[in-house]
Amino acid sequence: MYPLADGLFAPRNQWYVAAWSREVTRKPMERWVLDEPVAFYRKEDGAAVAVAGRCPHRSFPLGKSRVIGDNIQCGYHGITFQPDGSCARVPSQKAIPNACRIKSYPLAERWKWIWIWPGDPAAADESLIPDHFEIGLTDPSYHCAGDLYNFVDGRYMLMHDNLFDLTHLNYLHKDTFGGVEGTEMVPECLTGPGWVGSRYAQRDVYPSSRFMELLNYRDKVDVVVGLKLLMPCLHVGGGEHYYPATHPRAGQLLGAEKYYHAITPATRHTTHYFYGAGRTWEHPDPDHSQKLVDGVDPGLKEDVYATENIERMIQHYGGRPGELLLRADNVCARGRRFFETLIRKELEPQSSQASERVQLAENT
Amino acid sequence: MYPLADGLFAPRNQWYVAAWSREVTRKPMERWVLDEPVAFYRKEDGAAVAVAGRCPHRSFPLGKSRVIGDNIQCGYHGITFQPDGSCARVPSQKAIPNACRIKSYPLAERWKWIWIWPGDPAAADESLIPDHFEIGLTDPSYHCAGDLYNFVDGRYMLMHDNLFDLTHLNYLHKDTFGGVEGTEMVPECLTGPGWVGSRYAQRDVYPSSRFMELLNYRDKVDVVVGLKLLMPCLHVGGGEHYYPATHPRAGQLLGAEKYYHAITPATRHTTHYFYGAGRTWEHPDPDHSQKLVDGVDPGLKEDVYATENIERMIQHYGGRPGELLLRADNVCARGRRFFETLIRKELEPQSSQASERVQLAENT
Amino acid sequence: MYPLADGLFAPRNQWYVAAWSREVTRKPMERWVLDEPVAFYRKEDGAAVAVAGRCPHRSFPLGKSRVIGDNIQCGYHGITFQPDGSCARVPSQKAIPNACRIKSYPLAERWKWIWIWPGDPAAADESLIPDHFEIGLTDPSYHCAGDLYNFVDGRYMLMHDNLFDLTHLNYLHKDTFGGVEGTEMVPECLTGPGWVGSRYAQRDVYPSSRFMELLNYRDKVDVVVGLKLLMPCLHVGGGEHYYPATHPRAGQLLGAEKYYHAITPATRHTTHYFYGAGRTWEHPDPDHSQKLVDGVDPGLKEDVYATENIERMIQHYGGRPGELLLRADNVCARGRRFFETLIRKELEPQSSQASERVQLAENT
Repeated sequence: MYPLADGLFAPRNQWYVAAWSREVTRKPMERWVLDEPVAFYRKEDGAAVAVAGRCPHRSFPLGKSRVIGDNIQCGYHGITFQPDGSCARVPSQKAIPNACRIKSYPLAERWKWIWIWPGDPAAADESLIPDHFEIGLTDPSYHCAGDLYNFVDGRYMLMHDNLFDLTHLNYLHKDTFGGVEGTEMVPECLTGPGWVGSRYAQRDVYPSSRFMELLNYRDKVDVVVGLKLLMPCLHVGGGEHYYPATHPRAGQLLGAEKYYHAITPATRHTTHYFYGAGRTWEHPDPDHSQKLVDGVDPGLKEDVYATENIERMIQHYGGRPGELLLRADNVCARGRRFFETLIRKELEPQSSQASERVQLAENT
Repeated sequence: MYPLADGLFAPRNQWYVAAWSREVTRKPMERWVLDEPVAFYRKEDGAAVAVAGRCPHRSFPLGKSRVIGDNIQCGYHGITFQPDGSCARVPSQKAIPNACRIKSYPLAERWKWIWIWPGDPAAADESLIPDHFEIGLTDPSYHCAGDLYNFVDGRYMLMHDNLFDLTHLNYLHKDTFGGVEGTEMVPECLTGPGWVGSRYAQRDVYPSSRFMELLNYRDKVDVVVGLKLLMPCLHVGGGEHYYPATHPRAGQLLGAEKYYHAITPATRHTTHYFYGAGRTWEHPDPDHSQKLVDGVDPGLKEDVYATENIERMIQHYGGRPGELLLRADNVCARGRRFFETLIRKELEPQSSQASERVQLAENT
Repeated sequence: MYPLADGLFAPRNQWYVAAWSREVTRKPMERWVLDEPVAFYRKEDGAAVAVAGRCPHRSFPLGKSRVIGDNIQCGYHGITFQPDGSCARVPSQKAIPNACRIKSYPLAERWKWIWIWPGDPAAADESLIPDHFEIGLTDPSYHCAGDLYNFVDGRYMLMHDNLFDLTHLNYLHKDTFGGVEGTEMVPECLTGPGWVGSRYAQRDVYPSSRFMELLNYRDKVDVVVGLKLLMPCLHVGGGEHYYPATHPRAGQLLGAEKYYHAITPATRHTTHYFYGAGRTWEHPDPDHSQKLVDGVDPGLKEDVYATENIERMIQHYGGRPGELLLRADNVCARGRRFFETLIRKELEPQSSQASERVQLAENT
């Protein structure tokens, strides 16, 4: 489906951020992921669980049911499932039918994120989740914070389109981020094993007024801005400011921000959007990073606004609007092919799930 | 359509409760019944009338029109219809076209209920409506009350599924009715000519705290709970408490409640739900029965909640969700077949409407 | 589509009223016209512009974007279009792709109305717009006023059905206009080159109480009421009161109102409704005409109510409700054929747009 080729929705044998840790509690939560209802809750020991959100008996939503001990009990007739999806009890009978079991999603809780794997559980290798220290989230030198969640009434690929092409910063975000002149150019398209990214580099320019203030530095700098799609769910990027060639500390980092955008399909036409960020500079306010994150939310809501408007436009045009690719869509075009390749591999009958990781590495 | 076989909606040659008496007045009311718009009103002598709710001229809703004398006058161009559906007047011309007539629904007002027959009027035998004295509604020893109406944003058969299987009482209604432990079992499935029902019997158990209080009796009892689907629209049931074998008055009735659930399809995916109830014990408060009925509404709204959630789940799964039949679904399975049989008989070309009643009696 | 033949929506090679002048400003406005999104704005010199409302790059709504000088700049990535639809700038690249252009709608601003031509621009002859002086709008002897806009959640042809058949005045508008007894008859059907109309004439009758008051005249009059569909978008009509034959000034005009109903399809199932009116008599209050117009709005909202209810009824009946044609539908039937003929001519492959005007003149 647009902007992917007809019939292609999303790769399933992947890890997706499904929730912030704080959202999953002893009270079940219903959340749709990749067009499936999922019930999230925590066991008595605090471990998070994700199981199918529909009771196989009468389709009552398990995410609107009850947790009993470590199990989830359907709120309609009380059928109770264990974290592994097996049935622990059918109140009205002793024998438990073989078919009375639900899907249990492989789950990993890292940093503040709950990751789940919607595809074949046998292929759910946790090492496929990017190392959170390596990408900065748990590296104390980045002072990361997060907590932003936006529900998007539009298909997830439009959010990726948005992040692949930062030339929108000066237009869509004119009244929020504004003034990032350097991004009005065709980005460098970077690729590597399993990832696609953009890079916008400028030498000897004035930083945005926002950065001038944050770093208390008003001279020219070299700036590098960019985002990498590390995996179908996650863009990691940054805005890095270096002393320019004319400065005695030429090439040294003056200050950098890190951005983390997790994009997860909810249904075919709706999306979950999680955002966190970090920064390299020190600051006396312990809430400084969280304030930076919160300050970005009005801008993220502009992205949501654009996506929701485009979704309505697409629906009006029967799912196939015309479109025009510009040079600055180089990363976007590459990114879409990245998704299409992953999805098509999953649809091939001979595709072995076990070889998924190799395919990922080979696909670019 | 689920949970019936594909293409089967609802039997038409049946009486359905369409309104509470108080709802039908001299001002027309629009209400959909079996996917048809119906206009209800009262004649000058107070008799209730149900005619097609769509003007055949330009499709204006007659249920949003005016009553003039005994007739209903379209609110758009003033075409006026008599209670029998024939046209009394076309303001702009003297001659009345033959095609200018609307369906008039056979109607019977019994107790506080307006019953209509959506099918072939020739087959509308009022004796097919259960005798209201016999079922308790107008028998003064039952002190019946009623007035609850809930609109359900889900298909009617889900409400029948709900009533066929009372093992949900301890789960869906945990915080309202609660504590009816005895229903956590496979019910007896009872059938007879034209009806299907459930029966849950327990000997020598403590009654629910609600009954202990209502009857001011705290010893053990024999309890029988159950519901009978007497016809496609109506479940009649009860909760009966008897002195147990160990008691000097063993086997005598201590106190009973009667329940009346009328379930009528509005459209294919929405439902009207009418509820009344009675009780055998005396009580000084003349509003006692009505208070009992009103006290049940929060519980009924839980049934509506379940149905509406399941409806959304079904729609997401393209109208065909998977399902699992448990032993306690014995009555449910039988009840669904009961509906399918009635609908299929109506679809048979050779089916004579006149023999409907016989078929009804034979079908179980 | 109902009430036209299957597959027929609306003629495109026509002028349509798309907005009141006051609605179009330097801030872009999104409005759908004939199922297309259109962006309206004004240039620095005040001239109104209508261009396609969807950016060809990523489908962002241009009507929710920005005006820069005389151009419109997409609010997403800043692609900028000139009033003729050509692209002035793609921020991220110098070369402008050939395909990067949008439709520009021929536009004419007359009286307080913005007219646009959704069809082939080469055929957009402004002389096809009725002469506004001739129809009274700019003729000072008619003291015209206007400003009413209603959005209708129903298909545009239902609004034409409404205006073709004034026998609804005494019923739908019983509590607003009321008392126009003379319209309860089969109208004369008038036709001419490119137009269809109705005429209801009565001799020696009392005028409505509203007219009695407005003209301060309580004797009998000759009354002529009617509406002409001058073109697919516009009904022009009047209520004329003459001294009757028994009066010394027999045949002279006592007072007349003029009515202007502009009906423009928004999408396939929604409509824009613009209303203005004038009157021949003098009045000291300079706002008298506007007050007359405003006083009509509750009545127009009844027409909207009828249309929206009928639209829902049609949708329920799968787009093809039954209907009954009465004698008073003579103008309606003729008017529908008028639309069907125009649409079918546009669908013929050999149809030359240049000959459109001739066809218009010939079609009745």
